[in-house]
Amino acid sequence: MLALGIDIGGTSIKGAVVNELGEPSEMFSFPVLKEDNQNTVMDKLISAIDDYLTSHHFDEPISGIGIGIPGSIDAINGICLYSNNLNWKDLEIVKILKGHFNMPIRITNDANAAALGEAAFGAGKKYSNVIMLTLGTGVGGGVIINNKIYEGSDGTGTELGHMTIVKDGVMCTCGRKGCLEQYASANALARETKEAMEKHPESLMHQISKEEGKISAKVPFIAARKGDKTANEVVDQYVEYLGIGICNLCNIFRPDCCVLSGGISKEGDYLVNKLTAYCEQNNYGFPYAKKCVINIAELGYMAGIVGAASLILK
Amino acid sequence: MLALGIDIGGTSIKGAVVNELGEPSEMFSFPVLKEDNQNTVMDKLISAIDDYLTSHHFDEPISGIGIGIPGSIDAINGICLYSNNLNWKDLEIVKILKGHFNMPIRITNDANAAALGEAAFGAGKKYSNVIMLTLGTGVGGGVIINNKIYEGSDGTGTELGHMTIVKDGVMCTCGRKGCLEQYASANALARETKEAMEKHPESLMHQISKEEGKISAKVPFIAARKGDKTANEVVDQYVEYLGIGICNLCNIFRPDCCVLSGGISKEGDYLVNKLTAYCEQNNYGFPYAKKCVINIAELGYMAGIVGAASLILK
Repeated sequence: MLALGIDIGGTSIKGAVVNELGEPSEMFSFPVLKEDNQNTVMDKLISAIDDYLTSHHFDEPISGIGIGIPGSIDAINGICLYSNNLNWKDLEIVKILKGHFNMPIRITNDANAAALGEAAFGAGKKYSNVIMLTLGTGVGGGVIINNKIYEGSDGTGTELGHMTIVKDGVMCTCGRKGCLEQYASANALARETKEAMEKHPESLMHQISKEEGKISAKVPFIAARKGDKTANEVVDQYVEYLGIGICNLCNIFRPDCCVLSGGISKEGDYLVNKLTAYCEQNNYGFPYAKKCVINIAELGYMAGIVGAASLILK
Repeated sequence: MLALGIDIGGTSIKGAVVNELGEPSEMFSFPVLKEDNQNTVMDKLISAIDDYLTSHHFDEPISGIGIGIPGSIDAINGICLYSNNLNWKDLEIVKILKGHFNMPIRITNDANAAALGEAAFGAGKKYSNVIMLTLGTGVGGGVIINNKIYEGSDGTGTELGHMTIVKDGVMCTCGRKGCLEQYASANALARETKEAMEKHPESLMHQISKEEGKISAKVPFIAARKGDKTANEVVDQYVEYLGIGICNLCNIFRPDCCVLSGGISKEGDYLVNKLTAYCEQNNYGFPYAKKCVINIAELGYMAGIVGAASLILK
């Protein structure tokens, strides 16, 4: 059995055909531009799928298309109700794609898709209760309870990034202040990095951001590993913010495992070790409460695609 | 079908047989004394259950015993791991009771039991997915998903009051800072009331606290209803704090209903109307997302007994 998995992100759309073992074939991708609206993105997506399927040979027919989308999803009716990152509203994505592709099409929230991918084929496969946090443009989340995605009472998914952790904090695109997303996303870390660099002209982060071509979330981690004091402070502050979010979720869900994905998760054990130390000190009931293992997603940036395909495969 | 529900508290233990409609029969209760240890309490509980069951006539046999306990519970293995209030540790309560009563025995955290009671037979009975927040000395909570208690991967329950909403905020008894409990409990509201009174000698709250005999969480509500400006500010600030907690939980769980219990819930519609207005403005995806109904608990102090019995009945 084969399925096409599509991972829609804030800046790009990726897709690949995935087999029953969760193994993806060659990927396609195209950028989401600022001038794109929901209709032009749909047109581009249809063209990209057409190009991909006609230019690649598969041994079996494609059984369906699964899609992960950043926003509030009505999975039952196939509608993206609202996406603050993409500025989409009431987009009937399944209906639109059904007009071009005669196969089952299912959608879910992008972080749910990634969580499903990890649960089925990656870091979550050893565990029954998993929290997934996707640390990218924003902060998404997926909750797996007893090996199933929890999508809330109306199927619109969980919004773990939109949990206020700093009352009266940074304004979020969702309209509230102080959401986890505003402190634990790659964008947030880049913002904090920029602020720290302005205050600290001596920091190694200036040189590294020149080498990297921009002030990104990678910059403080590279500089911190090289012993830069300001970078270390930026990273430690980031760990505290993300740690607060993880501890909140551990106190609420008592999961077996918290899986980190998205760009910042590439920092690997360096990040995990700092986070684990923070969470062991701060989880409720420590040392009586069960420890939550923090893992880096095994499927990396393919988790969303594999998980989206899993909507059809599983 | 009948089940015996037991509600273990810090100062007394209550129990009653409950039928399939959630209707309790006559209740028994006995005090927990300071000199009691976990073994003597177990002996007293066994005697009390024996006395109750032999002195009352029921039309059907009792199908099992459900028990709510204040503390960290291993529901799967029937053990109270730790109870700060009772000074219990590693008490194998199900094993001990099974030695005397030949029927299914199940235990859960006391807040979970109350949440299950309200969800099954009280303010949440119309709904499948219910969050309960108990606004008392602290802030407890319970999560009902698809009509069942969510107890986490290790059965130790959810700690909804220990969610940081104010980074670097008020120190909590759990060791973290800025927990919801430090802003939404009756103790927290009394603290905020006292602070506001010190700054505002003209406030009506001074007179009302004298009439009430103390500065309690009731004082700002009484004064706000009478139009006192400072009291209104205290209440509005409280609504914002509690609203942040409820919105966080709505964004995470997308419940059908949030039930409020505990002392502050006695403010009824006055509180519910303010909270509903706050949450409708602040929930993620508003107005696209499903609204969460906020209800006041209906079962009062019987919620724990009825919920404990529901562990067997449901």
